[in-house]
Amino acid sequence: MNDTPIALARWGSFHVGGRTTRVDGEPVREVLFTPGSAPAVLDPNGTYLVGGMYAQVMVPAPRRGAVPLMFWHGGGLTGACWETTPDGREGWQHFFLRRGWEVVVSDAVERGRSGWMRIPEETGGIPVTLTVENPWERFRIGTGTPQDGALLPGNQFPGDAQSWANFIRQTVPRFTSTDAMTLEAYGALLDRVGPSVVVAHSQGGFFAWRAAQEWPDKVRALVLVEPASTGIAEKAAALRDIPVLMLFGDYIEGDPRWPAIRARGIAFAEQVRAAGGSVEVVDLPTQGIRGNSHMIMMDRNGDEVAVLVQDWLARRGLWA
Amino acid sequence: MNDTPIALARWGSFHVGGRTTRVDGEPVREVLFTPGSAPAVLDPNGTYLVGGMYAQVMVPAPRRGAVPLMFWHGGGLTGACWETTPDGREGWQHFFLRRGWEVVVSDAVERGRSGWMRIPEETGGIPVTLTVENPWERFRIGTGTPQDGALLPGNQFPGDAQSWANFIRQTVPRFTSTDAMTLEAYGALLDRVGPSVVVAHSQGGFFAWRAAQEWPDKVRALVLVEPASTGIAEKAAALRDIPVLMLFGDYIEGDPRWPAIRARGIAFAEQVRAAGGSVEVVDLPTQGIRGNSHMIMMDRNGDEVAVLVQDWLARRGLWA
Repeated sequence: MNDTPIALARWGSFHVGGRTTRVDGEPVREVLFTPGSAPAVLDPNGTYLVGGMYAQVMVPAPRRGAVPLMFWHGGGLTGACWETTPDGREGWQHFFLRRGWEVVVSDAVERGRSGWMRIPEETGGIPVTLTVENPWERFRIGTGTPQDGALLPGNQFPGDAQSWANFIRQTVPRFTSTDAMTLEAYGALLDRVGPSVVVAHSQGGFFAWRAAQEWPDKVRALVLVEPASTGIAEKAAALRDIPVLMLFGDYIEGDPRWPAIRARGIAFAEQVRAAGGSVEVVDLPTQGIRGNSHMIMMDRNGDEVAVLVQDWLARRGLWA
Repeated sequence: MNDTPIALARWGSFHVGGRTTRVDGEPVREVLFTPGSAPAVLDPNGTYLVGGMYAQVMVPAPRRGAVPLMFWHGGGLTGACWETTPDGREGWQHFFLRRGWEVVVSDAVERGRSGWMRIPEETGGIPVTLTVENPWERFRIGTGTPQDGALLPGNQFPGDAQSWANFIRQTVPRFTSTDAMTLEAYGALLDRVGPSVVVAHSQGGFFAWRAAQEWPDKVRALVLVEPASTGIAEKAAALRDIPVLMLFGDYIEGDPRWPAIRARGIAFAEQVRAAGGSVEVVDLPTQGIRGNSHMIMMDRNGDEVAVLVQDWLARRGLWA
């Protein structure tokens, strides 16, 4: 825990984006919302607002970042993953705020404080909820189950039982059917906040690539932490003026999925370079930063990686 | 917007509470979480952690509140309702933080950053999602529909089209089947944070009464903003040493539900007094504070009401 107080010039939150949809012909019913309250007539017919997105903004005093720094979380999580670690340390939200960046932390559409509405009616799908066991191997933390407690050798994720429960409590249902409305909402967020650096993790990397290609004038740099996917090859040239840093953690070669995901990311980086762009790919172990799981910002050495990101941004003239 | 920076000694978040449940015998399937990623084998069998709760803590420097001040939101909303107003002003979270209170803002179980899991399997119900139209009359803001824009005369809620969309984007599915696990999680929150003042709105008032009766040593005072329900009559004596302030807004007499809800609250206050407790009921119009909807903390005159709460807490020796 860092004991130095943080001075905020301002902070707060807002929602952006979303679209309306109509429902008609459903029966009106009576609902007792709270025991001991009075029943209410609930008419489910009418207008629904779906696909809005929550964002929290903190502006430090003094401010040293040239533009705001956005944090886009991965699938199955919310913005809370940047706000704290499972073992209660400060998150990357603090790290960059303390260095004078305006930080904007959002909850992706249909997750967290963005709320969710009329799923699957509007999206054609229902979300996947994860077991306690699922992310243990999939996020390259341990083998077997978390109940066994067998971490991968040297793994930096706080994998004790209490921390694991804290991590799982951060997880939320993850949608595979809401990508279009999520991308749209990220566009609304960039519109509202203005040109920003986007730090994106995992599934967030998919949206970050696509958003940068769709609205290149709104993205000043991309920091992609183990992006789960790539941008669109035919639109590689749209990324020409946006410096990109791509980070990958440890244990990738032994994983059933990450070698392929990483290889696709690197192939896309080549396409962006061929189109005149600049993409730097950093495999953390080659920099002597070892033991990172997929949840790099939560790992015990997460601040070492944050320093690397901070230095990269400063070298690009985005911090003074 | 208040332009004075806020100094935070610390801030962050955590999750508390929840319990595990098992699922067995379901088919394993393959899921492509992100387009362009690698498919993952998803085993839905295993352990689930349900009923956890998210809380954000901000500790100002210097600190003047004797204990932390918790904010428990109402049904269909998240903690964001304390963080901003639909027209973008600072919320009560700011108001009390600026006065030196440690503020703890939670998202109730199955809402916001608390996530939701295995609904209805674990709770026996599915949540209610609200139309854009529904809260307009029910929250005593206007007549007809928000699209007509007919505010109740003198109403202080920011009811212009843009603000209304912002408010609706804050709403989330509201559960009527998760009360037991929500109360349990509030207990875990009080355990974690320690004795606190609880400011609760609407459905949150139901949980605040019950939590104070269940864990009276953890609650130093209750501020109930239009509580939707009461505590348990047989346990009125448990509230003997907890000062209570109950607030009601305007337009109650013309509403189909609020006269009954308010009357029950006042009857319960009598029972608490009869058992030796102290409950102060304030109908804001009788104090010259007029035009308040059900969403008092969001109303244009919300800070006037916050001043009244602040003074009440200071008179009880909870602020220096």
